[in-house]
Amino acid sequence: MPIQNAFYAQSGGVTAVINASACGVIEAARRRPERIGKVLAGRNGIIGALTEDLIDTSLESSDAIASLRSTPSGAFGSCRYKLGSIDDNRPQYERLIEVFRAHDVGWFFYNGGGDSADTCFKVGQLSAAMGYPLQAIHVPKTVDNDLPITDCCPGFGSVAKYVAVSALEASFDVRSMKETSTKVFVLEVMGRHAGWIAAAGGLIEDHGIPVVILFPEVPFDPERFVARVDALVRERGYCTVVVSEGCRDADGAFLAEQGSRDAFGHAQLGGAAPVVARMINEKLGLKMHWAVADYLQRAARHIASATDVTQAYALGEKAVELALEGRNAVMPTIERTSDEPYAWNLGVADLADVANTEKFLPKTFIRDDGYGITDACKRYLKPLIRGEDYPAFADGLPVYATLKNVAVARKLAAFAIR
Amino acid sequence: MPIQNAFYAQSGGVTAVINASACGVIEAARRRPERIGKVLAGRNGIIGALTEDLIDTSLESSDAIASLRSTPSGAFGSCRYKLGSIDDNRPQYERLIEVFRAHDVGWFFYNGGGDSADTCFKVGQLSAAMGYPLQAIHVPKTVDNDLPITDCCPGFGSVAKYVAVSALEASFDVRSMKETSTKVFVLEVMGRHAGWIAAAGGLIEDHGIPVVILFPEVPFDPERFVARVDALVRERGYCTVVVSEGCRDADGAFLAEQGSRDAFGHAQLGGAAPVVARMINEKLGLKMHWAVADYLQRAARHIASATDVTQAYALGEKAVELALEGRNAVMPTIERTSDEPYAWNLGVADLADVANTEKFLPKTFIRDDGYGITDACKRYLKPLIRGEDYPAFADGLPVYATLKNVAVARKLAAFAIR
Repeated sequence: MPIQNAFYAQSGGVTAVINASACGVIEAARRRPERIGKVLAGRNGIIGALTEDLIDTSLESSDAIASLRSTPSGAFGSCRYKLGSIDDNRPQYERLIEVFRAHDVGWFFYNGGGDSADTCFKVGQLSAAMGYPLQAIHVPKTVDNDLPITDCCPGFGSVAKYVAVSALEASFDVRSMKETSTKVFVLEVMGRHAGWIAAAGGLIEDHGIPVVILFPEVPFDPERFVARVDALVRERGYCTVVVSEGCRDADGAFLAEQGSRDAFGHAQLGGAAPVVARMINEKLGLKMHWAVADYLQRAARHIASATDVTQAYALGEKAVELALEGRNAVMPTIERTSDEPYAWNLGVADLADVANTEKFLPKTFIRDDGYGITDACKRYLKPLIRGEDYPAFADGLPVYATLKNVAVARKLAAFAIR
Repeated sequence: MPIQNAFYAQSGGVTAVINASACGVIEAARRRPERIGKVLAGRNGIIGALTEDLIDTSLESSDAIASLRSTPSGAFGSCRYKLGSIDDNRPQYERLIEVFRAHDVGWFFYNGGGDSADTCFKVGQLSAAMGYPLQAIHVPKTVDNDLPITDCCPGFGSVAKYVAVSALEASFDVRSMKETSTKVFVLEVMGRHAGWIAAAGGLIEDHGIPVVILFPEVPFDPERFVARVDALVRERGYCTVVVSEGCRDADGAFLAEQGSRDAFGHAQLGGAAPVVARMINEKLGLKMHWAVADYLQRAARHIASATDVTQAYALGEKAVELALEGRNAVMPTIERTSDEPYAWNLGVADLADVANTEKFLPKTFIRDDGYGITDACKRYLKPLIRGEDYPAFADGLPVYATLKNVAVARKLAAFAIR
């Protein structure tokens, strides 16, 4: 078989462990020089393929590639850019083929979430639809944990750990000040449509913390919520609220709609915490504080989950194996075989079944009152946040990699992306 | 000499390492049973002394006391409660003496910031003013780093480390998304009057991150600020803004109080970060994200600075030594003898010189343009965030101590605090 180069790109919002998947892909590819030549990374995701802005990862040392395992963010740049259908956007797909042909790319690895799975699925159709032989493998990544089929998504375990650790620490703070100061602390976390991240806040209940979770899945009822906080503060003297940025009222309106939309047309959210905190202050007269974790939560490699890092790397490796086995338009997955002791295998899913399908928090994971998580949810979450995987530190700060990212010489004319 | 009990209390906003000081006090006291009987902790700070709500720490195991070293928040409860002058509040001071006499308290350790130093100073005057022999030692604690004389304050190094690590991680995130998504990230940090905490954000500049710091000490000039952000984004493609909650405009009005309105038309509570972020979006049309760290920053024991933990413990120990040496109305301090290699000794300051004096960020620590820190500031900050001191983890979460906190039997009639 001929040796062909591989293309790898990162897509969508980055995470604490997407680079661990990149590390898995590149290290696995380097172990198979008889099949895979260079791994060429797209600078800024798929845009790098369209603009022929390819990074030659073979110029990075083994140490540099290994350091990706403990570096958050997207080392090659990521993007929010969705390819349209092949029928409506033929020039884009023709351009991809032109670039791949020019650089002898036979393997396509796309590391992203639901929208990216859709892009990868379309690229996987190039072979049949446009006669260019290419194997497209999607490497799952999303803090939202909303991809179907796989038991969990790399990025989620670490953000869940960050949320649980942060909520626990802040709750200890409030508990010690409750007599004369703050009685309610509100933490806003990510999760536009699914309450997976907010659910992680529920894990601190087992540490004795009175906590109220506001899920996107449960319509927000101001009066019931205020009554719940009031009851907890009367009983325990304080409480912590973890609110999802995707929390909506009974009419479906976000508690905090910013009005702007991202490139995928999703509403850009932020600011549910101050809305909720103000409500508590106004209705109950309680002193409150609020925090919005925003990017801190998904970038927090310093407190990443060891389970998450291990799986992110393993899925990157597995993607290469699947490609070498001749698979196309598939995604490696995590298959859980046991909660406790936690055990999992790697599986594989067809992208046709993955693309554009969101996995919501199951009803059985939300407590009947809508403000907490069930034991089943705790059994699901606990292994995902388990284990610490600390980066190296120097002078008090983590040592995160910045690669050389040397561009491959262009061979083609420029191409304007939309 | 007679054996007498010690009183210990935590005061003001808690930190990631105030319990490490408690650990230092209690362990040091336990090593001197020939002088110090029990350490009685005030439940909820000085309020516990006034209400005779005393915790018998002798009922806690050595392991439990040792675990305080790695537990954030105030293990005995803290309070925001300031004693007035002795002349105007004689009944309160008489009550303190009544409680101390009833429980044979001869040593008074008060763990707090500037207001607490003032309270401790007043308690130290009891001996002369009201004839009750008592040695009052203040153990410094404040994330604001604004106590005079001591080179730094326990709690600050850890919050500085949290801010620098978080800003670095979020900046990596934005850097990788800048082509098609967020270009400016705004992080709001604590520091109502002094910019010490915001200054820590400047440390990431040495990691190649374009950053703008907004200090309380520098009047906020919207046009100049927007121009600075614009220049950095044009040059580097992105930038990070670290804004102090205490940032004010030329008229002295806090940015956080310049109410923007949410989607429902309600004025937003607090939040300098959203004000700054919206300004960037409106004036430059750049996509931005913002985070408010709030309590997360001062509670983040999981990423505490080892320097800070060591000093917090050492100052607690030293306070006991000073008491045993017969000192009164003093505070142990950190005396820096070298930046690099970092070296420090323990010193001692008279509380008369400490109480009600705030130490602001020196002008020589703020860069001429007002948006960054100088090399002198970096030399000051670097050793303070150095070293990691991870707590133990179980099942993915830190193992933080919750003590039994058994109350000592009351001997006196109730006393109503104001």
